[in-house]
Amino acid sequence: MDETYRAYQAGASIVHLHARDPKTGKSVANNVLFKEYYDKIREKCDIIVNITTGGGREVPLEKLDDVIHERIKLKPDMDSLNMGSVNVWFTPINDDVFINSTARVERWAKWMLEEGVKPELEIYDTGMINIAATMIERGAIKEPAHYQFVMIGKTGISPTVKNLAYLAEEIPKNATWSVCAIGRYEMPMAAVAIPMGGHVRVGFEDNIYLSRGVLAKSNAELVGKVVRLAKELGRDIATPEEARKILNIPPRR
Amino acid sequence: MDETYRAYQAGASIVHLHARDPKTGKSVANNVLFKEYYDKIREKCDIIVNITTGGGREVPLEKLDDVIHERIKLKPDMDSLNMGSVNVWFTPINDDVFINSTARVERWAKWMLEEGVKPELEIYDTGMINIAATMIERGAIKEPAHYQFVMIGKTGISPTVKNLAYLAEEIPKNATWSVCAIGRYEMPMAAVAIPMGGHVRVGFEDNIYLSRGVLAKSNAELVGKVVRLAKELGRDIATPEEARKILNIPPRR
Amino acid sequence: MDETYRAYQAGASIVHLHARDPKTGKSVANNVLFKEYYDKIREKCDIIVNITTGGGREVPLEKLDDVIHERIKLKPDMDSLNMGSVNVWFTPINDDVFINSTARVERWAKWMLEEGVKPELEIYDTGMINIAATMIERGAIKEPAHYQFVMIGKTGISPTVKNLAYLAEEIPKNATWSVCAIGRYEMPMAAVAIPMGGHVRVGFEDNIYLSRGVLAKSNAELVGKVVRLAKELGRDIATPEEARKILNIPPRR
Amino acid sequence: MDETYRAYQAGASIVHLHARDPKTGKSVANNVLFKEYYDKIREKCDIIVNITTGGGREVPLEKLDDVIHERIKLKPDMDSLNMGSVNVWFTPINDDVFINSTARVERWAKWMLEEGVKPELEIYDTGMINIAATMIERGAIKEPAHYQFVMIGKTGISPTVKNLAYLAEEIPKNATWSVCAIGRYEMPMAAVAIPMGGHVRVGFEDNIYLSRGVLAKSNAELVGKVVRLAKELGRDIATPEEARKILNIPPRR
Repeated sequence: MDETYRAYQAGASIVHLHARDPKTGKSVANNVLFKEYYDKIREKCDIIVNITTGGGREVPLEKLDDVIHERIKLKPDMDSLNMGSVNVWFTPINDDVFINSTARVERWAKWMLEEGVKPELEIYDTGMINIAATMIERGAIKEPAHYQFVMIGKTGISPTVKNLAYLAEEIPKNATWSVCAIGRYEMPMAAVAIPMGGHVRVGFEDNIYLSRGVLAKSNAELVGKVVRLAKELGRDIATPEEARKILNIPPRR
Repeated sequence: MDETYRAYQAGASIVHLHARDPKTGKSVANNVLFKEYYDKIREKCDIIVNITTGGGREVPLEKLDDVIHERIKLKPDMDSLNMGSVNVWFTPINDDVFINSTARVERWAKWMLEEGVKPELEIYDTGMINIAATMIERGAIKEPAHYQFVMIGKTGISPTVKNLAYLAEEIPKNATWSVCAIGRYEMPMAAVAIPMGGHVRVGFEDNIYLSRGVLAKSNAELVGKVVRLAKELGRDIATPEEARKILNIPPRR
Repeated sequence: MDETYRAYQAGASIVHLHARDPKTGKSVANNVLFKEYYDKIREKCDIIVNITTGGGREVPLEKLDDVIHERIKLKPDMDSLNMGSVNVWFTPINDDVFINSTARVERWAKWMLEEGVKPELEIYDTGMINIAATMIERGAIKEPAHYQFVMIGKTGISPTVKNLAYLAEEIPKNATWSVCAIGRYEMPMAAVAIPMGGHVRVGFEDNIYLSRGVLAKSNAELVGKVVRLAKELGRDIATPEEARKILNIPPRR
Repeated sequence: MDETYRAYQAGASIVHLHARDPKTGKSVANNVLFKEYYDKIREKCDIIVNITTGGGREVPLEKLDDVIHERIKLKPDMDSLNMGSVNVWFTPINDDVFINSTARVERWAKWMLEEGVKPELEIYDTGMINIAATMIERGAIKEPAHYQFVMIGKTGISPTVKNLAYLAEEIPKNATWSVCAIGRYEMPMAAVAIPMGGHVRVGFEDNIYLSRGVLAKSNAELVGKVVRLAKELGRDIATPEEARKILNIPPRR
């Protein structure tokens, strides 16, 4: 888990994990791999570990609940929790739909609640803030909640300054939020979020370029860039310990 | 089709049709019924007929394309075309997803193009405007396009004044648009759309109340109410003939 | 004061008064006239009386404070209080500036506080909401405050749906608000305010037309039109007594 | 003019000039001083020189037109042109109003047109965009125009991300724009403007701090900081020559 460790050294306080088959490099629904990664990271540093429930879904939809329940039982610090369904955005023309029915969202949210895992509410468009509100109302998600605005454009909300201002206004006043945008919008949206008091996610899942035409060598390089931006703008970088306080996540187990 | 005729007399220039089983009253994927309705309406008046491709889907997903292709071949004036996927909003907690993958949207859009049917672009959240833009870019939808903002809240965009102003700004300048909102938001959103230059859809699909606690006796009653609002606000009511010009739909066949 | 009484009968709960010279018809800074109007209205009905401090300024700027202080001492229910300076908007090209320095705003606000007169905070552009916030912070204006968005366009904020949504979001959550817009924007902005929970001011100061090309015969006719709009949209019309409760104004003296 | 030269070396392409009495340090309406500054700057570099018409007004209002006309006749590259009146924002409670009646704005705009001076349209609140539109319509300002959003808060528009997104949407599509905000908002608003395609003004007129509690030693230090931000965000820094092309200002005379 050198990549995670380097990002941590560069200033990252949270790592968002997908699992990849070591041979094929493809994303896989392999909870054993997730457990292995998690344990290795824990040996090296107290970075907050956030395991995806969006990626690593290569199982039939009817088995998905079981796979994810098992994954949540790994009790990482956080799990991503996608707040609704949206057409898949990779090259706009395909027949894939990222399916997260409202009832399924609630089941997963409750499992996270039971296991003491902080959900990261993934918001791809405005209606998903409404679903989050319903979940809070029904007790499936505890406040203060943490929102991740995933500004995908194409099939979801466009990565514009106006839209980020909108999203930040629509969530509960006691919430924390973070933004990630895809490709060349990653750094601009980070630069807008920082003075707004938001947090920032960067990395290869969303963007592989450091600047126009220049591939980033590592996630750490992208983290380093955001750290410089934040410093120019007078915001401090949270240590994992500070981030745990901000996000209301207990010290690492 | 007395209900349609009464709405027409009350001032409606477009009727949006779902088919219901005459015995059970349930929505059905029965194209024979759609054809029958269509022919009967045509005998009585030149109202623009808009047939749903969203409702009447009670077939397995893999057969849906064929059913809808056949329905489009009925060549009504318009067909609704849902611009993406969204969780189903009736009582928020259920396992249904309204699935409209981007590739499927394109297939249907092209069939409408081939049959000379004007698509009504159903927008449930901001990202669907992006999908519409992709479709226009790829030639599957012709400009000027007509957008229907379906402000469902719950799992889609909330029916607020701010959001309607946003949606109207985001579509192409040469587009026409209309709004429908659910339940008690139907009339307020109509009242906002009218001075903005938008059009309005009302009716039992979205709302059954004429005012708080008072059930509307007919769709015509809801149409009548919008007609009064429009007149107070100085907007004229389009005849079907005028609406055909506004929407660029040829005279009835 | 037949005009006021007719508006009251049509449903108005507040009357906003300017004084005019009975001979010339020109607006005048004549506090004796204001007193006379006020007393006559009081004889007839309990409508809330709101006396302008914006109009009736035909005195040198250095004498204005004294004239207005005397006017506030008439102790009407409300006084308008303009929250800043803006270029005069009647035909855009002129050398007049509507001057309300921040220090003067504070002096007048404090006099209203001393006399128990409810200020109606006149907002011509976004910055005036900031001045109101400063006044509240400094204790010159008591919360909950009442804001009047004067959407003049031309030299102030444009009468658009987007802007009204913005203004309503920027004021304190416990505030009440009302809108008036000029000319043909009067009724459209009223129609937008009603479903937003705002209140509405109409009348000859802002608009003289009932509909395109049709002059209103009286303020009462314009009030009647708004009353019909409100009823279609399911909002009740406040009696003066109810309006006093909403605005936190004691029963008439 | 060492300060200007250092800012130029740090990357500034425009300098905005006020004149100060060399003895007292106070801003003065001294056109001889402006001429002197201008000539000295021209000897050293081709930076675009933008002379204030807002500052340096220490003359009675009735003489102001003459003073400014003379100043415009110095034919600098640009002159600031304040697009309306607003209460003075230095400590909110004072009796000063920054007076720029619409007719006066037009006179000055026409003089700039006659002398070939590019106006920088200073926008303190939304209504001033309307005044600019009137000026363009009347031929007093040529398109494409350049807008400077002066986000003063207090008595004008608040320096928020939402407001900057609003302002940038409201000006003509062919316009260029820049932002300056006061005090601690200067750098955040710069960071937001850069990814939006806007330009940035920084300097001691608006802000004297490099970061919290750290006084900037020079305008050049503030320029250097913005240059670093722009580079992180993938925007190039215009040379004065490039800036002249962007702003449609002829090569220096």
